Amino acid sequence: MDNFVYHNPVKIVFGQGSIGQLGGLVPAEASVLITYGGGSIKHNGVYDQVRQALAGRRLWEFSGITPNPRYETCMQAVALARAEKVDFLLAVGGGSVLDATKFIAAAIGYAGGDPWEILNPGRPVTTAVPLGCVLTLPATGSEMNGFAVISRDSTREKAAFGSPAIYPRFSIMDPQTAFSLPPRQVANGIVDTFAHVAEQYLTTGAPAPLQDRQAEAILLTLREEAPKVRQQPHDYTTRANLMWCATQALNGLIGCGVVQDWSTHRIGHELTALYGLDHAQTLAAVLPAVWRYRKREKAVKLAQYAQRVWGLDDPDLDARIERAIDCTRAFFESVGVPTRLSAYSVDAAEAAGQVADRFRARGTNLGEHEAITPDGIQAIVLLCG
Amino acid sequence: MDNFVYHNPVKIVFGQGSIGQLGGLVPAEASVLITYGGGSIKHNGVYDQVRQALAGRRLWEFSGITPNPRYETCMQAVALARAEKVDFLLAVGGGSVLDATKFIAAAIGYAGGDPWEILNPGRPVTTAVPLGCVLTLPATGSEMNGFAVISRDSTREKAAFGSPAIYPRFSIMDPQTAFSLPPRQVANGIVDTFAHVAEQYLTTGAPAPLQDRQAEAILLTLREEAPKVRQQPHDYTTRANLMWCATQALNGLIGCGVVQDWSTHRIGHELTALYGLDHAQTLAAVLPAVWRYRKREKAVKLAQYAQRVWGLDDPDLDARIERAIDCTRAFFESVGVPTRLSAYSVDAAEAAGQVADRFRARGTNLGEHEAITPDGIQAIVLLCG
Repeated sequence: MDNFVYHNPVKIVFGQGSIGQLGGLVPAEASVLITYGGGSIKHNGVYDQVRQALAGRRLWEFSGITPNPRYETCMQAVALARAEKVDFLLAVGGGSVLDATKFIAAAIGYAGGDPWEILNPGRPVTTAVPLGCVLTLPATGSEMNGFAVISRDSTREKAAFGSPAIYPRFSIMDPQTAFSLPPRQVANGIVDTFAHVAEQYLTTGAPAPLQDRQAEAILLTLREEAPKVRQQPHDYTTRANLMWCATQALNGLIGCGVVQDWSTHRIGHELTALYGLDHAQTLAAVLPAVWRYRKREKAVKLAQYAQRVWGLDDPDLDARIERAIDCTRAFFESVGVPTRLSAYSVDAAEAAGQVADRFRARGTNLGEHEAITPDGIQAIVLLCG
Repeated sequence: MDNFVYHNPVKIVFGQGSIGQLGGLVPAEASVLITYGGGSIKHNGVYDQVRQALAGRRLWEFSGITPNPRYETCMQAVALARAEKVDFLLAVGGGSVLDATKFIAAAIGYAGGDPWEILNPGRPVTTAVPLGCVLTLPATGSEMNGFAVISRDSTREKAAFGSPAIYPRFSIMDPQTAFSLPPRQVANGIVDTFAHVAEQYLTTGAPAPLQDRQAEAILLTLREEAPKVRQQPHDYTTRANLMWCATQALNGLIGCGVVQDWSTHRIGHELTALYGLDHAQTLAAVLPAVWRYRKREKAVKLAQYAQRVWGLDDPDLDARIERAIDCTRAFFESVGVPTRLSAYSVDAAEAAGQVADRFRARGTNLGEHEAITPDGIQAIVLLCG
């Protein structure tokens, strides 16, 4: 186990009816900007619950945040927040609304030049306007971490940043808010959760058996719960289990003291930026390809994963690993997310070249110990075809 | 899954050499009282590391905190802290030192009468002097929670309290500090960790499959690591794994949204108060007895435990459960903690009457839904014989 620091001060308020506790969580004197997306919260009752819980408060609203939230949109909210002297942000939605709100929180008081610089690793964010969250879509884990991913139209870039300053002060998680989600978003959330676990678990490095088993706990629960949500979308227990899995997958816990490998996400971000695929669609295509490309290096962990998550015990390790990759692919397909770029009308050969060229231009390798070169990235994207 | 609130702001600094980070964690201007136990930290180098990391600071010391820390001892530290206007407490040791320090932190500014009242459930603690921790003994999980257990000589009582105000601001966890622990303390720590998990996992109530698997993750890791620590007490990885297991067992995570059953701990506290057994010795004796007594009510979870933790798949559920209880008992014995009161020269029949009478006098039941009456408690202690 490697040395680590773990510090996650987010207060989680989880369960049926928990939006009613909002009034006690948002500071009474705050000037609050409520941020949300395309208006689904107005149809499923969440908006009304939020307004009711905050009746009599000083509230502003900013809507129109899209999936893969755009820098250009965020900057409109920043202008509004600055003009109205907002001092608390309340994100109501899924990971995109949350990530946008985290960026807005950091950008409002940004004293440098263009707040896009916040996405630059050399510019650590140390202060931000405090924010809270009412989560409506289990997927990204953003409700309990200090990370955000933002896209920029003008340059077709997608970039991440992280800071303790952007931890939500609280996240309200009522699984009932997920009842009305479109099946595609539910499926994407399951794949996203699965990939978050995989990128912290299916790695090389010093043994960390508790973290391994905590990771497997999430994967096994996803495996059990995912089929149920399609059959019974209004089953509270299933929704609650999936929601808590998504949070646990990316709140830092399973990543304590282990080597991580975010190559699937990094390659996926480029595919989204270039071709507009949903984030989870890219993960479903790339993750099996990364495993196949790095099969030798990840063999020990892949074999363990095969056995513990899929119950595979082929004595031939390579056969066992291949079956585990097939099982993973079948799982993603079964929840409704295709795992081949061809299913999204993307030509793998062309995409491979384009994605690899972006990493060549930046001089960036990926994977544990930065072992995947741009040529390797090209080979991986080819395997997604 | 039941509704829950999870909020754990403790900063964990984990790993080799982490005591060197102490200077950056203790507020620079603070007047610090260092609390510790019988002096083992002076022999294993921890004391010197702490003093070196805090060289030049305003420091006071209070030593002599014993296992099952005594109210009377704590009050001496409170008097010192008040006299010297201490405004930060640094616990250096295991769970007993930490628990005592939490009580001291709450008692220093206690405005009511006798600070023993803090242990009264009707008197919630809302403020405390801030505290930090350098952990040297993995066992109680106190390094990442807001609970403490204190004993009183004059009345032979042992009582617990909890408050967000007594969360450590940070806990430094260097597994190397455990290398020199006496085998009995190591064994006790393993049993304590196991019992903490069991009291949150082997319960009745609504399904919470992720929490179940997170609990099983700890139990499986304990099962794997415990034999190694006896053979190779200086193996860093084993020490690190056991230390992280102990923290994860009682930081609130596996207890999110599940019914809990602290009857083993509650009965065990009485046995310690009456007969002076180590805390973990009482747990090793009582836990199997509670399971046997509540076998019918806990059958579903006990059968799951049997299968997932011990790999037992007897088709006859009762036989499977009995074997799992036997495996648990054998595990405790294998790490070096006897599981029968007779091994501690305690007469079970007499103890059963005495313990039950204490609960009769208080009018207190135990277990999920308070289903275990004092007569049931008497039966359980009899089963420990």
